[in-house]
Amino acid sequence: MKRIVFLLLAVSAGCIIAASMNPGAGRADGEAAPIFGVKIPPGYRDWRLISVAHEAGNLNDLRAILGNDVAMRAYREGKLPFPEGTIIARVAWDYVPSEENNKTFGRPQSFVAGPPKNGVQFMVKDSRKYASTGGWGFAQFNKDGKPADEAVHKTCFPCHQAIKARDFVFTHYAP
Amino acid sequence: MKRIVFLLLAVSAGCIIAASMNPGAGRADGEAAPIFGVKIPPGYRDWRLISVAHEAGNLNDLRAILGNDVAMRAYREGKLPFPEGTIIARVAWDYVPSEENNKTFGRPQSFVAGPPKNGVQFMVKDSRKYASTGGWGFAQFNKDGKPADEAVHKTCFPCHQAIKARDFVFTHYAP
Repeated sequence: MKRIVFLLLAVSAGCIIAASMNPGAGRADGEAAPIFGVKIPPGYRDWRLISVAHEAGNLNDLRAILGNDVAMRAYREGKLPFPEGTIIARVAWDYVPSEENNKTFGRPQSFVAGPPKNGVQFMVKDSRKYASTGGWGFAQFNKDGKPADEAVHKTCFPCHQAIKARDFVFTHYAP
Repeated sequence: MKRIVFLLLAVSAGCIIAASMNPGAGRADGEAAPIFGVKIPPGYRDWRLISVAHEAGNLNDLRAILGNDVAMRAYREGKLPFPEGTIIARVAWDYVPSEENNKTFGRPQSFVAGPPKNGVQFMVKDSRKYASTGGWGFAQFNKDGKPADEAVHKTCFPCHQAIKARDFVFTHYAP
């Protein structure tokens, strides 16, 4: 019996470790974004990578688009529309030349991620809750974790309507 | 007793699911890279994101630097040198303007990840095995999954020596 109890504990501990390494689980904290009521999903920075991009111009950032498990599965299976529970995150950093890398390459060619920039954005799929905006809730949070104002959130869906044919999501999966 | 057995099975099943979502686990397949004998680590595309970059010039790519669990922990704890078992992956895609995004933004500013480009690279920490190259094994694989040739692998360490102060790793963690 002692042996069985030991096994149970050992296996359970393994699961707790595994669970703690899935930071997408857990409850959202912080202030909710206006209009859509979306909060920052805990652990989103540990989600898997959908793709990367550089926005020049005023945005001038390097960005990564991350997906929760539902998002990743849908992307890889080419499933449209995205299923309920999909969350896509956009993180971004200042677009900075790397003197260090350039010195090694011997020419000015390297641009890397600097400090966080342009906040973080989320798209959350809930067809019933967000029926009037293509089934998506949109949220933008500033660097301090506070949601951007209502005026900003009113611009999300009109812009994403341009890509209605791909369920309002611009980003392609980078294989 | 039946109940205990049931519990064990249930918990074990949970662990198997958790394990299958950690694609860094498992055995490496495919051909080993010359000099260092590194194989492509299974599931590396699902590893967490360390940072992103754009290399202009001849490389002309958008790239993501991913880390296995050991790498992520070390980066976040600011631990140097990187511990045994650290693996850092560099994936890259063609740097392409997105007409679709530019149309929506109303100006030519958006560059996204196109098809895979410039292969995939790995740094594997094993201080004893790779004692003569700073404790790191280096590997580059072409798009077809075949390792690059020996001449290519001879260039890795001399270049990374420039960044000996950070344990031969160029990439900073993007918070």
